[in-house]
Amino acid sequence: MIVVKVGGAEGINYEAVARDAASLWKEGVRLLLVHGGSAETNKVAEALGHPPRFLTHPGGQVSRLTDRRTLEIFEMVYCGLVNKRLVELLQREGANALGLSGLDGRLLEGRRKTAVKYVEDGKIKIHRGDYTGTVERVNRDLLDLLLGAGYLPVITPPAISYEGEAINTDGDQVAALLATAYQAEALVYLSNVPGLLAHYPDETSLVREIPVDRVEDPEYLSLAQGRMKRKVMGAVEAVKGGVKRVVFADARVEDPIRRALAGEGTVVR
Amino acid sequence: MIVVKVGGAEGINYEAVARDAASLWKEGVRLLLVHGGSAETNKVAEALGHPPRFLTHPGGQVSRLTDRRTLEIFEMVYCGLVNKRLVELLQREGANALGLSGLDGRLLEGRRKTAVKYVEDGKIKIHRGDYTGTVERVNRDLLDLLLGAGYLPVITPPAISYEGEAINTDGDQVAALLATAYQAEALVYLSNVPGLLAHYPDETSLVREIPVDRVEDPEYLSLAQGRMKRKVMGAVEAVKGGVKRVVFADARVEDPIRRALAGEGTVVR
Repeated sequence: MIVVKVGGAEGINYEAVARDAASLWKEGVRLLLVHGGSAETNKVAEALGHPPRFLTHPGGQVSRLTDRRTLEIFEMVYCGLVNKRLVELLQREGANALGLSGLDGRLLEGRRKTAVKYVEDGKIKIHRGDYTGTVERVNRDLLDLLLGAGYLPVITPPAISYEGEAINTDGDQVAALLATAYQAEALVYLSNVPGLLAHYPDETSLVREIPVDRVEDPEYLSLAQGRMKRKVMGAVEAVKGGVKRVVFADARVEDPIRRALAGEGTVVR
Repeated sequence: MIVVKVGGAEGINYEAVARDAASLWKEGVRLLLVHGGSAETNKVAEALGHPPRFLTHPGGQVSRLTDRRTLEIFEMVYCGLVNKRLVELLQREGANALGLSGLDGRLLEGRRKTAVKYVEDGKIKIHRGDYTGTVERVNRDLLDLLLGAGYLPVITPPAISYEGEAINTDGDQVAALLATAYQAEALVYLSNVPGLLAHYPDETSLVREIPVDRVEDPEYLSLAQGRMKRKVMGAVEAVKGGVKRVVFADARVEDPIRRALAGEGTVVR
């Protein structure tokens, strides 16, 4: 099994991703696609007069403030625009793709976090009523059913809370959870940069490899902090959880998945 | 099998539809839901600066002009906003709903009609490049797979062309095709009126019953023309195709499906 997460930033070449995924699928490679949609959500939210707002958490991460209206716009873009775009492109390339959000068949279940801590003017505050959460359970039976019948699942947030509410959730974490559930051969993160960069956005500073057992060495420690912390630590956890390797790679090029599998990008193993 | 089409006009009580559908599903009734979303598509299209345009065909029917941008907005509303709203409401009510568009697993396949005839200033003109079409094939294997595993499918346009393009298609016809494929006990059309009205919008002019073999009698002939023609003739065809009965009923009330099944509305049999 190979799990591919297609990022939601500007510049993703969806046609190339779909061509590559469909060609692998036709060779019999078992695949799961997970995708984002944040840049387009921002655009649509602006256009609909409900501009995006972000919260900076005490740990430094940034997340989308998700009130009910934002959740609707999020669903329009992730489940409507981006998911169906990918499914259509894959179908045109001959792969029998089938789109699913985490709500569908309770594919991605987790805990809603109604109260979210954030930092404003140096103070820790609490935002209530948010529709966000963390996925804890994956409905692998549903995926096995569809994979067994020859479909290629294309998976997107939101997830579903135990109470049955839609919750915005981190797509990177969803991909890692799925890859761990399947003890995947590879987990590939495609985005609009060639991999993890020691000096963002300088693409010549690409880090070629991060050995999991040396992630705390001085050489790698700086990567496991700041803006890349969540990505690096998520990859390390996935490898420790049984995923053979994690690759951060470029989605602006032809054959992005094959290149990643051949080691182009940042390989965590 | 009962097939329920939830219309896309203003005033639909989605909570009541979901409560009723979930309660039937929990009693073991086999259900397929199909939904629309036209009123919300119009609103979102306006807000996004791409206002809806409609074509009047030589036969009198009106359809949405669907260029590529309209198709994207259509997918955002149908597959994102409305489909996930229904799936979420059903999940909250304890039914394991799973949303599918016609693209997913090639659920609804048909022929794209790139050239569409329409009437303007009394002349017949041709609009090219449209993304619309008519569904000819249903992937019943996929539905059987999901129904067999206990899921409640929630189905929405667009469909997919034989060439793999998304095509806007008529949800009423999709519901009829599904009901025919399953030789359904009932096909229920829920909308924001109590059924078919002899004198629209006068709700007291509700037609209680249309016997299929008498649809050309003078008493019923006027119903099979004008704005209701497509609905009436579609229902007649479904019944002739093996569907036990078709009911046009109100989606603004509590228990809308049970009421329809009890005969409230217009019954075609």
